[in-house]
Amino acid sequence: MNVIEEVRKNTPLIHHLTNQVVMNFTANGLLSFGGAPVMAKAEEEAAEMAANADGLLINIGTLTAPEIPAMIKAGQAANDKGIPVVLDPVGVAATPFRRHAVAEILQVVQPTAIKGNAAELANLVDISWEMKGVESRGSGDISEVAKQVANRYNTLAVVTGATDVVCDGKRMETNETGHAILSKVTGAGCLLGSVLAACLTVEGNAEMQALAAVEFYGLAAEYAANNIAVTGPGTFVPAFLDALSLETAQLRRTNS
Amino acid sequence: MNVIEEVRKNTPLIHHLTNQVVMNFTANGLLSFGGAPVMAKAEEEAAEMAANADGLLINIGTLTAPEIPAMIKAGQAANDKGIPVVLDPVGVAATPFRRHAVAEILQVVQPTAIKGNAAELANLVDISWEMKGVESRGSGDISEVAKQVANRYNTLAVVTGATDVVCDGKRMETNETGHAILSKVTGAGCLLGSVLAACLTVEGNAEMQALAAVEFYGLAAEYAANNIAVTGPGTFVPAFLDALSLETAQLRRTNS
Amino acid sequence: MNVIEEVRKNTPLIHHLTNQVVMNFTANGLLSFGGAPVMAKAEEEAAEMAANADGLLINIGTLTAPEIPAMIKAGQAANDKGIPVVLDPVGVAATPFRRHAVAEILQVVQPTAIKGNAAELANLVDISWEMKGVESRGSGDISEVAKQVANRYNTLAVVTGATDVVCDGKRMETNETGHAILSKVTGAGCLLGSVLAACLTVEGNAEMQALAAVEFYGLAAEYAANNIAVTGPGTFVPAFLDALSLETAQLRRTNS
Repeated sequence: MNVIEEVRKNTPLIHHLTNQVVMNFTANGLLSFGGAPVMAKAEEEAAEMAANADGLLINIGTLTAPEIPAMIKAGQAANDKGIPVVLDPVGVAATPFRRHAVAEILQVVQPTAIKGNAAELANLVDISWEMKGVESRGSGDISEVAKQVANRYNTLAVVTGATDVVCDGKRMETNETGHAILSKVTGAGCLLGSVLAACLTVEGNAEMQALAAVEFYGLAAEYAANNIAVTGPGTFVPAFLDALSLETAQLRRTNS
Repeated sequence: MNVIEEVRKNTPLIHHLTNQVVMNFTANGLLSFGGAPVMAKAEEEAAEMAANADGLLINIGTLTAPEIPAMIKAGQAANDKGIPVVLDPVGVAATPFRRHAVAEILQVVQPTAIKGNAAELANLVDISWEMKGVESRGSGDISEVAKQVANRYNTLAVVTGATDVVCDGKRMETNETGHAILSKVTGAGCLLGSVLAACLTVEGNAEMQALAAVEFYGLAAEYAANNIAVTGPGTFVPAFLDALSLETAQLRRTNS
Repeated sequence: MNVIEEVRKNTPLIHHLTNQVVMNFTANGLLSFGGAPVMAKAEEEAAEMAANADGLLINIGTLTAPEIPAMIKAGQAANDKGIPVVLDPVGVAATPFRRHAVAEILQVVQPTAIKGNAAELANLVDISWEMKGVESRGSGDISEVAKQVANRYNTLAVVTGATDVVCDGKRMETNETGHAILSKVTGAGCLLGSVLAACLTVEGNAEMQALAAVEFYGLAAEYAANNIAVTGPGTFVPAFLDALSLETAQLRRTNS
């Protein structure tokens, strides 16, 4: 049984502390994929919600100060329970507020994986990278960024882009599946964080699980983009959500 | 004229204090159905917004502490004005934070209806029920749960599930319309709360109005699920939103 | 090159302080149209985010008190940098809380344009107008409202409705494109604010840019509404998002 099938057998419950722009899309995407979302955000229940879950996603896309303690409590509860924690440092390079928040979280929470675009992960290891808003625009040595993030934070680094790079500090894997239309859909990266968290809940090697997540996600995007009912980013979204419920073999067959 | 037609004649304005995951879906669903949504959430204007509305929905899905006073003020204003109040205690069994918030609200706000899944309503009457995240997973005597909620809170109890149960404390009605794909769409239950609030704004017997709401909602889901353009939960959503604007007779004819 | 083509050449980054109901729809709509959204809302980074952007949208749809300082800081940073600021005073006539918030913002932030329905803009110049929730229902002299708003606030007034009116205080322009189905889609006006902000980022006359924005937006709505796959407001949304990525000439050709 492959990683995707394992996830679906278990329907892992993923607790999300994520941004307001993508909550609906993320919840629907994870449901279609085969996980179960919960999105409580009060500090009072953050630890308990994480302790009842199978995985945790922390995404700082629309962060406000009161949310930081909730993220920390949820992260610590997840670490205590031994469930995977995915950190998505959205736009961390954009402002000191975000940089400080991420630093504060990383001081007390151990992420299983840090996922982001090249500009975001470069910022975490003090490599300068061109960006616009919360999007990465520059080019550079992505493998070096991935390796440094993995080593400095003792975590899996997942750098998304035309080529995705997954690095556990020693081995480096790349993925070429995906489609440009994803750049026209808000939260495409955020939902991948949720799918990644679900894939990290199964037994086995984390790097292989992450690679399965990004490969599957890219295949689903290609599959949906090739759907004749898709005529732009608006019609792509429902088709993509549907594709996330399919089997890898089916996506691969149709795309080739 | 049936309940659904009555609602559409009036386009009732429903004030929502609801969760961030489902706000867009709920607003679009209520608009399509024939109501008008407003979703202010500041404590400063909660009472005034409710007093200007025809109905109120309180949903605690992503509750934070500062939202509780707004919910209470809106609920009290609605009670004062005599407009229906629907309480959706999302995930109330998941944490003490939610239980206490719901208890605090119920101490000073009289709901016209409490709507939720079996695990949520069972929790309100201290019956234990299996759940996962904010979803109900267990099985048990749903009618008993509905009856106890109706009696203890002097309200209409609406328990959603494969069979929906509506109970006003004396009579018990059940509904079998609906479709399993709703469990793959986040906020399917939340939007029903909004449709229910709209149906409770018309003249007549509240239990019959609630039954009309759950029956119509289930028929719309069946209708959309049978649409040949629907290939999964992603494409189901727009088709379902469309179906919510149709007439009961049309939904029933096509489904049979 | 027309205004729409100019926007797309630059992919302007628009910072949004907007309401929770429409964030996803707005971000996807702006992306499809050819801009780039960012939606940070913390006071700590509001000024910096605006200073890094090409335009700013302030929308008070689900305003809470802590968001007002963030709106002011972002607005002042945008004024300092000289980038366009669009203010969308959603439901300003509904409560004193909203009226005071808008007054507070307008005291220290100079908007390039104020966009809203007739009831909202009438309220800003103390003309009474019938409304329901946050929707305008009455009728009256829209041109007079537009002129007074433009003169009192030294800004471009954009009044949306069956006929859109754009007024810079001297000249008055009207637009007739659009489709009634937009009234069944939550945030249709909010997304227009974002498209308007993007159009105001290009060189030239602001009134002509605003006119180009409302005309294009209406043409895209007509185009999507005529799509045979559209059977209601649910299926309209993805088709409309797609249409926002097309060229004006293509929309006009198909609609005529």
